[in-house]
Amino acid sequence: MHPQQELPKAPIAGVKHLVAVGSGKGGVGKTTVSVNLAISLARLGRKVGLLDADVYGPNVPLMMGTRETPMGHAERIRPIEKYGVKIMSMGLLNPGDKPLVWRGPMLHNVMQQFLRAVDWGELDYLIIDLPPGTGDVSLSLVQNALISGAVVVTTPSDVSLEDARKAVYMFHQVKVPIIGMVENMSFLNCPHCHERIDVFSHGGGRRKQARRPSASP
Amino acid sequence: MHPQQELPKAPIAGVKHLVAVGSGKGGVGKTTVSVNLAISLARLGRKVGLLDADVYGPNVPLMMGTRETPMGHAERIRPIEKYGVKIMSMGLLNPGDKPLVWRGPMLHNVMQQFLRAVDWGELDYLIIDLPPGTGDVSLSLVQNALISGAVVVTTPSDVSLEDARKAVYMFHQVKVPIIGMVENMSFLNCPHCHERIDVFSHGGGRRKQARRPSASP
Repeated sequence: MHPQQELPKAPIAGVKHLVAVGSGKGGVGKTTVSVNLAISLARLGRKVGLLDADVYGPNVPLMMGTRETPMGHAERIRPIEKYGVKIMSMGLLNPGDKPLVWRGPMLHNVMQQFLRAVDWGELDYLIIDLPPGTGDVSLSLVQNALISGAVVVTTPSDVSLEDARKAVYMFHQVKVPIIGMVENMSFLNCPHCHERIDVFSHGGGRRKQARRPSASP
Repeated sequence: MHPQQELPKAPIAGVKHLVAVGSGKGGVGKTTVSVNLAISLARLGRKVGLLDADVYGPNVPLMMGTRETPMGHAERIRPIEKYGVKIMSMGLLNPGDKPLVWRGPMLHNVMQQFLRAVDWGELDYLIIDLPPGTGDVSLSLVQNALISGAVVVTTPSDVSLEDARKAVYMFHQVKVPIIGMVENMSFLNCPHCHERIDVFSHGGGRRKQARRPSASP
């Protein structure tokens, strides 16, 4: 997208597959999908890492139930391990209520550190929980790392679908294949009468997928 | 926060009050609150503008039901008017599925244009629908514009509250008073049995507000 940044994408030593989990909009359950994907793959016997790339609102530590501080080891950072998944998140390095006030270029650097200076070891899958949207961090990551595929999470609401289309477009532009779309919050079963409630009107994710741009637009 | 950027905050000519609507996390209903706040104030007879500052996922046009393209007029851009509210959004200038691939410094410039090169005219309130989180655009806006007060939107979920605390901290740091916190999606009434469902467990927003840091931390 920015010609000066079309460097050859570099693989991460020891990591077989980089899978990005993205969304156009926040609050659609991207982190929930990332965490469940990581733990499920670990339970299937795969070696899995989970990189929380949402530096402004890192929710992976809370969802994984850890506040452990990662330790340095021979100029590399050791990820935290929980439920068989190796985790790295800005929420572990900068816990508490103080927001990170870093701007674009600093974010770019921290992501490169998270990818390359963390002691991930041998991994079958490194799941990257992208920040919402198509901003600086997402762009840097998808442009500079050799991502095997992307999962796009949406809800059936019109605003979420509007933004999910932008995320799909971004991945197509950088030639990252879309492995799948997850329609989250499709419905809710009432805990009282057990009837199904279509909170955001059901099926939008499927309609969107049918309309997604072809691989070579 | 960045000392080099502590310039004197400049008022916008003709605009009496700048009100920022922010959230730590996306998908909590920030745009819904902004749109309702703007239309409600307009119905009370106030002169109101609504600036959609979420350049990556601008949902104001969809929610306000307009796709009209703003026109230039004497080197200034004329906002679109709908429901008595003057609107400006990147979604009006860059419609469709193509994401904006601008980075930090360009975003900073577009926000200054949105504030100062748009023909807002005389306004009692200019509501700014901030992007989610405490990233580049939010920081630039709260540091450079004379904001009268901020509204922080959250849901009762732990992850939303975790991120809302960061937004509150950001506003305190730049001495923008918090006018109020809105707990959105507190509960849902089942359309079948009309029982109330606490989807994200109720009352977290109120508990959070009670714990918010004092005005001079």
